[in-house]
Amino acid sequence: MVNDDQFNPVRTDLAVEAKDMYGKEEGQSEGITVRDVKKDGIKISYVKINDEGARKTGKKRGHYVTIYADGVKKQDTASQEAAAKILASELENILKLNHIHKNDKGLIVGLGNWHVTPDALGPMTVEKVLVTNHLFELEFETVAKGYRPVAAVTPGVMGVTGIETSEIIAGIIEQYKPEFVIAIDALASRSIDRINETIQISDTGIHPGSGVGNKRKELSKHTFGIPVIAIGVPTVVDAVTITSDTIDYLLKHFGRTWKEKDRPFQSLLPGGFTFGKQELNDTDLPNLEKRQTFLGMVGTLSEEDKRSLISEVLSPLGKNMIVTPKEVDDFMKNMAHVLASGINAALHETIDVDNLSAYTR
Amino acid sequence: MVNDDQFNPVRTDLAVEAKDMYGKEEGQSEGITVRDVKKDGIKISYVKINDEGARKTGKKRGHYVTIYADGVKKQDTASQEAAAKILASELENILKLNHIHKNDKGLIVGLGNWHVTPDALGPMTVEKVLVTNHLFELEFETVAKGYRPVAAVTPGVMGVTGIETSEIIAGIIEQYKPEFVIAIDALASRSIDRINETIQISDTGIHPGSGVGNKRKELSKHTFGIPVIAIGVPTVVDAVTITSDTIDYLLKHFGRTWKEKDRPFQSLLPGGFTFGKQELNDTDLPNLEKRQTFLGMVGTLSEEDKRSLISEVLSPLGKNMIVTPKEVDDFMKNMAHVLASGINAALHETIDVDNLSAYTR
Amino acid sequence: MVNDDQFNPVRTDLAVEAKDMYGKEEGQSEGITVRDVKKDGIKISYVKINDEGARKTGKKRGHYVTIYADGVKKQDTASQEAAAKILASELENILKLNHIHKNDKGLIVGLGNWHVTPDALGPMTVEKVLVTNHLFELEFETVAKGYRPVAAVTPGVMGVTGIETSEIIAGIIEQYKPEFVIAIDALASRSIDRINETIQISDTGIHPGSGVGNKRKELSKHTFGIPVIAIGVPTVVDAVTITSDTIDYLLKHFGRTWKEKDRPFQSLLPGGFTFGKQELNDTDLPNLEKRQTFLGMVGTLSEEDKRSLISEVLSPLGKNMIVTPKEVDDFMKNMAHVLASGINAALHETIDVDNLSAYTR
Amino acid sequence: MVNDDQFNPVRTDLAVEAKDMYGKEEGQSEGITVRDVKKDGIKISYVKINDEGARKTGKKRGHYVTIYADGVKKQDTASQEAAAKILASELENILKLNHIHKNDKGLIVGLGNWHVTPDALGPMTVEKVLVTNHLFELEFETVAKGYRPVAAVTPGVMGVTGIETSEIIAGIIEQYKPEFVIAIDALASRSIDRINETIQISDTGIHPGSGVGNKRKELSKHTFGIPVIAIGVPTVVDAVTITSDTIDYLLKHFGRTWKEKDRPFQSLLPGGFTFGKQELNDTDLPNLEKRQTFLGMVGTLSEEDKRSLISEVLSPLGKNMIVTPKEVDDFMKNMAHVLASGINAALHETIDVDNLSAYTR
Repeated sequence: MVNDDQFNPVRTDLAVEAKDMYGKEEGQSEGITVRDVKKDGIKISYVKINDEGARKTGKKRGHYVTIYADGVKKQDTASQEAAAKILASELENILKLNHIHKNDKGLIVGLGNWHVTPDALGPMTVEKVLVTNHLFELEFETVAKGYRPVAAVTPGVMGVTGIETSEIIAGIIEQYKPEFVIAIDALASRSIDRINETIQISDTGIHPGSGVGNKRKELSKHTFGIPVIAIGVPTVVDAVTITSDTIDYLLKHFGRTWKEKDRPFQSLLPGGFTFGKQELNDTDLPNLEKRQTFLGMVGTLSEEDKRSLISEVLSPLGKNMIVTPKEVDDFMKNMAHVLASGINAALHETIDVDNLSAYTR
Repeated sequence: MVNDDQFNPVRTDLAVEAKDMYGKEEGQSEGITVRDVKKDGIKISYVKINDEGARKTGKKRGHYVTIYADGVKKQDTASQEAAAKILASELENILKLNHIHKNDKGLIVGLGNWHVTPDALGPMTVEKVLVTNHLFELEFETVAKGYRPVAAVTPGVMGVTGIETSEIIAGIIEQYKPEFVIAIDALASRSIDRINETIQISDTGIHPGSGVGNKRKELSKHTFGIPVIAIGVPTVVDAVTITSDTIDYLLKHFGRTWKEKDRPFQSLLPGGFTFGKQELNDTDLPNLEKRQTFLGMVGTLSEEDKRSLISEVLSPLGKNMIVTPKEVDDFMKNMAHVLASGINAALHETIDVDNLSAYTR
Repeated sequence: MVNDDQFNPVRTDLAVEAKDMYGKEEGQSEGITVRDVKKDGIKISYVKINDEGARKTGKKRGHYVTIYADGVKKQDTASQEAAAKILASELENILKLNHIHKNDKGLIVGLGNWHVTPDALGPMTVEKVLVTNHLFELEFETVAKGYRPVAAVTPGVMGVTGIETSEIIAGIIEQYKPEFVIAIDALASRSIDRINETIQISDTGIHPGSGVGNKRKELSKHTFGIPVIAIGVPTVVDAVTITSDTIDYLLKHFGRTWKEKDRPFQSLLPGGFTFGKQELNDTDLPNLEKRQTFLGMVGTLSEEDKRSLISEVLSPLGKNMIVTPKEVDDFMKNMAHVLASGINAALHETIDVDNLSAYTR
Repeated sequence: MVNDDQFNPVRTDLAVEAKDMYGKEEGQSEGITVRDVKKDGIKISYVKINDEGARKTGKKRGHYVTIYADGVKKQDTASQEAAAKILASELENILKLNHIHKNDKGLIVGLGNWHVTPDALGPMTVEKVLVTNHLFELEFETVAKGYRPVAAVTPGVMGVTGIETSEIIAGIIEQYKPEFVIAIDALASRSIDRINETIQISDTGIHPGSGVGNKRKELSKHTFGIPVIAIGVPTVVDAVTITSDTIDYLLKHFGRTWKEKDRPFQSLLPGGFTFGKQELNDTDLPNLEKRQTFLGMVGTLSEEDKRSLISEVLSPLGKNMIVTPKEVDDFMKNMAHVLASGINAALHETIDVDNLSAYTR
């Protein structure tokens, strides 16, 4: 009877969207500022959206930072440590931008479902962060200088608890009264390329996609009254995305060949791209102008239209399928370590970029 | 830095205490009613304390039910099913006594620490109970008749989250607004005999022991405004208890021998209780009256005094030691199954004593 | 550094393939016998391949049974119990066909990776099966009649242990000397339709796909010298399959429309299938004969060719992507319960179809 | 039915025993060499037993190293890192003493039961060690210099698998053919003081206590033909030990008071050690010589006799009780990190004392 078909346990891309969807190159216009920098070999993108930008794009006003941390995926230890350090400094910066002071009480929330590996990033990270609030409450005198009070919870997912996640968090905030929230979540990416490659930070909170029957509420300053910093990592794509992307690639593949050679199906012929033992004769192929027309038509479909067509086609099969790399467990373990290290260093003065690994278990 | 020395993750005996501490045999007097029955070969004790009884004993007014379910410990499948059925009917009864109706919204709370096996009974049970509230909220029309809305959470322990557990629960109650709470917990028993043998139910909530620096709040109708049914199973004893009990047993052992034979240390002599290869001569032994005096003195110590002496002695070593059977993992798995089955059958009309096993995973 | 890109933690369809790939309807010919029956509303397919069939199809000689158990996916408790009972009787039958006697010593092997939810079916089932061998070895006299000696292990996956799984199992068999092996595994299906819907049993063992650098050895009577009964449940599809299937569905969709209406793109037009707010004019569409030609061409590609084209296209992105339903955790918990119940009842005389649920935790 | 009462999942003290049981101070005599050093503020004891020592003490010939790592218990990060470094260099040294070369193939075995927290140290450590063997086997060319082939397994406990653990390991060794084994285990200490305080290394393997019905075999060079390095950490004491120790402490307490003051029960009087509100009169106390006689008698019991008396007394209650600190989960997490870091640095040239933390997840 328990069924969470209705609940997307994994939320969608966070920070990088602003840039992606509105195609902004570096620069500033219409209320959106985009800036790329490179630190220690790691690319970081900053997007800032002001009120004008929010009005024009429909995105929330605020700061979006994307760290391109492909070292985690590649299991490169040094690069993971670099990513943790950058996360620490970016997070510190976002906290400052939101007027959080060094002794302000924090609540870390690990969103997602412990029991589904690619959705477990939040709980896995919470398991590794330094929790100090009880020490401040119960034995204030013993807490060394350089720490702030931090609590950490894993509220679970609605399919498991039966309660809307945002309600659980709201209740905890009401009682614990933190000055800010950091919410960690596994994301569903719109693009295969970003899976397990980026860490996305934003001070706009988390806004579940709306839709029929979707009663999930956002986690944000608007709902909770305190800043909500979201840290997200795309760990899955949905099946519609992967199918759509593949069709795009197929089209690009044909398209490229075609432009290069003015012979669209040349690549399918023996000598070009071969299909096993089957041989195709030129006479089997549609002629150039026919092909052009077809590609042209598919090309004119908007992204949204293409997705809704695929979704329509896939729906009887399993509209709630997620796609994830097989080696997802190793990735999760490493990424949770990077996130917890970065968060620990950002929140406690005593922990800095040189010793952050030592505090993370 | 995270240290939960201060936090007793495991609470003490719940229901059976009233009877134990005040030595009531079956019958009624001074506001305490005690009744024992046997169903399907399983003994059940009922203790009811009214206002007079509460005043006289210092125990909370309410109902206390103890099910003697040693079948779980013995891994006897049939007896486990019997225990689940009895739990279901006793729990139903307690719900009725607290004016809970069949469609009233419930919250199941699994107290304790997932990561410490003998303290994990609450979370393990929550993992197995039927959660239905989200179905009522999101697709009301599809929920079959005979179910009520139930949510289930595992708030963690303060040493892990940094937040007082009762605050987390209070926050969730405020948002989710259930009509009653069922709280499941592993207990620390005052007696070795009760370990893994009893299921204790009460409608008085959970009251953590008070003490210096102990800011933990009770979970009860008083604090939450709705009935709090506690289900507890003793899974550990503390080291002080086990030592004290052993000394008692040693004293009883000597005492019995002594009374029987009028020769207190006879049992230590060859022919009585032998110590390996060592032989004791009669001349090594204290004479009868000396022994009498010593035993007499220790015998006059109150239970409390004896415990505080042992505790004083043990304190440099580890005052927070817990004692648990080695095969605790099997026991926990089976007991969580029994509890979840009983709870599911008590809460949902569709699930009854004949099919309860089938709903528990 | 640990990287299991190379290792497919999830194996492919087991039993149902013989029928699927060779398109056999019920009946017997060329060494393949196919038979479908329905018990308690659940369809069961039997495929038997003899030496001639093996020669002709390249499939292993032996028995393949497929139970269509979609009740687990649908969380229908009664139907899950029915599936467990059918599994029990089919497994008993396969054991008999392989000359396993009621007291023969068994080894249950849970294949797969605990840490990746959709691959954890083997370990999750092993957690729930009844293990008795140690009781026979250590306290023979106390084992009740009606049980046989059974051991159960979870060898892990090569990406985690560093050792070829078949080597670990071979070593354990050499020491423990069972008379038969039951190996449980999560499968990768070639078809979305079979995900979480079928339980597949076979006495031919498990044969990992071969490939460059693939040194994994088969688990079979051939390698171990004793019968190896495989129980598999498809829990994932790979990304190539899902893409390929979608394209097929798209083609079918167009094809059907086209045949019905003799107007292939009618469905794309306003009034048919609408694309958001975009309107397509008839003049944008390729004419009928052009469309026919294109569909015709794609239709002539063999399944293998189509997959290799998609795989080629997808490869830079993530050739090791798996696709799984979001609610995979609930499914795994329920399916592991069904498998363990069925196995327990098949292996021990004392446990039968009426009490199997009670022995499974 | 599954019952592991018979199986001690936790083994007893390893290295430190030689010194403890035979009361050796630093120095050399009768085939036993004892040496204490201090590195980075951490005490290390070395005991070497040659053939003569083995004959005289009954202990195995070999090297025993004890690292006094109480920093883990105290959650002192810097001290944990120091302990990991010392473990690394001691382990390297023991490997050298056993003629293991830098490219020799290793097998790491995590003994114990995942599902019982204080017994899970082996599996938790294995989860964190670097596994490389599959890379050597499958893609030799890509393995960076400075690593050796290492595999790691968690064979489980007999109560869970049904198979004697040593048989599983023997089978894996036969197939995988390592040049040495490192076995990690949680130990049961004979002394409360050593709980969670020492890391014990030895090259004599692991020798389960013998006893009626105990068929467990040792893990050693003798049984496997290759060096078996044991790494053990005491995480529990048994209930008999804790009771016995408490009685000893009580005796010492009285004894000390007595010697100091020539008034043995002075401490029990008001002004000395008070018993709650109860006051004892001098006349209630036995006189000096009586007390002396009693203490004298108990004092003459050998350790073994005292334990067997307590064990006799405790046996109806629960002879298989283990005692463990409440905060055992935090300790295990930290200690597993220390062990895995030390092992990784000892086994792979690339990983050294300055970067060991970075390789452990």
